[in-house]
Amino acid sequence: MAFNRQSGILERYREFLPITEKTPLVSLHEGNTPLIHAPNLSKQLGVELYVKYEGLNPTGSFKDRGMVMAVAKAVEEGSNTIMCASTGNTSAAAAAYAARSGLRCIVLIPSGNIALGKLAQAIAYGAEVIAIDGNFDEALDIVREITAKEPITLVNSVNPYRIEGQKTAAFEVCDALTDAPDILAIPVGNAGNITAYWKGFEEYFAAKKSNRLPKMYGFQAAGAAPLVHGEPVSNPETIATAIRIGNPASKDGALNAISKSNGLVDSVTDEEILHAYHLLAKSEGVFCEPASAASLAGIIKLHEAGRLQPGSQIVCVLTGNGLKDPNIALKLVGEEPRSVPATHEAVMELVRQSGREFVS
Amino acid sequence: MAFNRQSGILERYREFLPITEKTPLVSLHEGNTPLIHAPNLSKQLGVELYVKYEGLNPTGSFKDRGMVMAVAKAVEEGSNTIMCASTGNTSAAAAAYAARSGLRCIVLIPSGNIALGKLAQAIAYGAEVIAIDGNFDEALDIVREITAKEPITLVNSVNPYRIEGQKTAAFEVCDALTDAPDILAIPVGNAGNITAYWKGFEEYFAAKKSNRLPKMYGFQAAGAAPLVHGEPVSNPETIATAIRIGNPASKDGALNAISKSNGLVDSVTDEEILHAYHLLAKSEGVFCEPASAASLAGIIKLHEAGRLQPGSQIVCVLTGNGLKDPNIALKLVGEEPRSVPATHEAVMELVRQSGREFVS
Repeated sequence: MAFNRQSGILERYREFLPITEKTPLVSLHEGNTPLIHAPNLSKQLGVELYVKYEGLNPTGSFKDRGMVMAVAKAVEEGSNTIMCASTGNTSAAAAAYAARSGLRCIVLIPSGNIALGKLAQAIAYGAEVIAIDGNFDEALDIVREITAKEPITLVNSVNPYRIEGQKTAAFEVCDALTDAPDILAIPVGNAGNITAYWKGFEEYFAAKKSNRLPKMYGFQAAGAAPLVHGEPVSNPETIATAIRIGNPASKDGALNAISKSNGLVDSVTDEEILHAYHLLAKSEGVFCEPASAASLAGIIKLHEAGRLQPGSQIVCVLTGNGLKDPNIALKLVGEEPRSVPATHEAVMELVRQSGREFVS
Repeated sequence: MAFNRQSGILERYREFLPITEKTPLVSLHEGNTPLIHAPNLSKQLGVELYVKYEGLNPTGSFKDRGMVMAVAKAVEEGSNTIMCASTGNTSAAAAAYAARSGLRCIVLIPSGNIALGKLAQAIAYGAEVIAIDGNFDEALDIVREITAKEPITLVNSVNPYRIEGQKTAAFEVCDALTDAPDILAIPVGNAGNITAYWKGFEEYFAAKKSNRLPKMYGFQAAGAAPLVHGEPVSNPETIATAIRIGNPASKDGALNAISKSNGLVDSVTDEEILHAYHLLAKSEGVFCEPASAASLAGIIKLHEAGRLQPGSQIVCVLTGNGLKDPNIALKLVGEEPRSVPATHEAVMELVRQSGREFVS
């Protein structure tokens, strides 16, 4: 089975997961995402940089890992309806695994600022999407309230199975590098993912599958940085919609990971995020969603402050696919492609104007 | 290295590829995409149905397989500029691998009807995108003319290395099933992919890596079906932009594959394509781009005509990710999500209105 991607995480890592004989091994072949070496950025930053490209999960984000576990347990427990609040990625994952398993799926999204691709996914997978006139934190409050009263399974990251599934990404990082890296850099929104990675690293270490633990570096968007400020942000704002969260559900898990690992939490501006986002695409050929680039933006910020040990082995988690939010890329360039008549001459004139040589 | 996706196709299948000691093993970890069993559709159609989900390649389509080979050879041959005509997916792949390898990339697209995600990718990866007032076939003519005269490497599928890289998908299908399937169903636009799959199946069979050859079933969009009509279509029209091609460059390869494999070529309407597209998402949790669904639409058409052998093992190639073209999904439903006040009651009212029970 070498080089095979023909199983999902429940089957592959079942010994580390809460799987019983009755748990259905639901799968869309999530996980086993590439850990891509970034030679150009490594050179530029004087470190050994990798990106964990979670955008190649079935619905285009790391959320699939936790959702497959949560949905499998919902099915095991006899539930026929799941519900979540979401800035987009969670809803896509919930909708896909619900479709796969024949469950009804209800998703609450904050109206406005939802990335186009994510909304399209939830709708295509057949979820019932409800927009509320409020932000993510309010949506989550409503979902918690409803699922506490009604026989509906909550699949937000407060569902403990989500963290269990998500921790498998840490296993994969260790498997690919044959050990944990020096630093694991990760965007922090609702804080479930940093909590899950740390849990994964600790469990792999305890099982002697790795020989060390990484430092956990969490990065929040400057306009949505409750962990950096030490208090909730009531009106979080950032272009990185996937981490536009003012009151993280897994705050304690994040703080524990950072403190135990001798890590840190810091913030990066939207400008720094977009710079890192474009840099990854232009110089390494990896297209992630803006929120994902917070991890690299943070590493660049630390590099510029002289706070990175030269030669460190660093893994930046890229949480989602750039295709989730195509409008951002188009806005970044700010212009439509140049349009010319359909002739050889008109095209060559433009090509020559750019001034770059194309000698073979 | 079990369950590992940490290498690309050049390394994995080098014995079957035109790789020399001087060929750089360029990689974004393309290939090794999931072959996903479709239990619900299998039951409905009375066959054993799988989908080869090529949307999980690094740039979201099968084009990465051919492009990594073409770019590696361009680098080996000392080129510093590549060029292609594209309805979108080729440009994304060309731009990504050019970025990775430090090459200049020029892409010609037909103005209008380019899927949003694809354009966003090419721009993000730093390609120079030029829109021409013409269709894909005219764009390809211009690119052929320019690259014949200038020291620029043509990376359209007429570049023979493209087919070489693309054939690796057939290897993976055989590896996953431990043999070739009864039928390989595939969307046909420029016809490079059906040509490549057949080449791959033939080579694997010759190397005794498989014990049989599949029947090749090619499906074109009704408004862009030159192989079905037996002559070029001068103004191809279909919602499936990735196969909106009137004069396929690899026509001969496609006809050879169909004839030698005892296969067929047929057309499917836009309505049939959209039905299959939505069905895959709703009933299996797999979101592909509209053109991809032509393969399943064709199989459904044959099923309804009583032309499928019950129990046949069928692989439908899904060429690209649904996130490439999110607007289609939104149009399909035709409405914005319902927006309500941020209260428990308002949300529950909507949930109850749907009339479906959510007992646990």
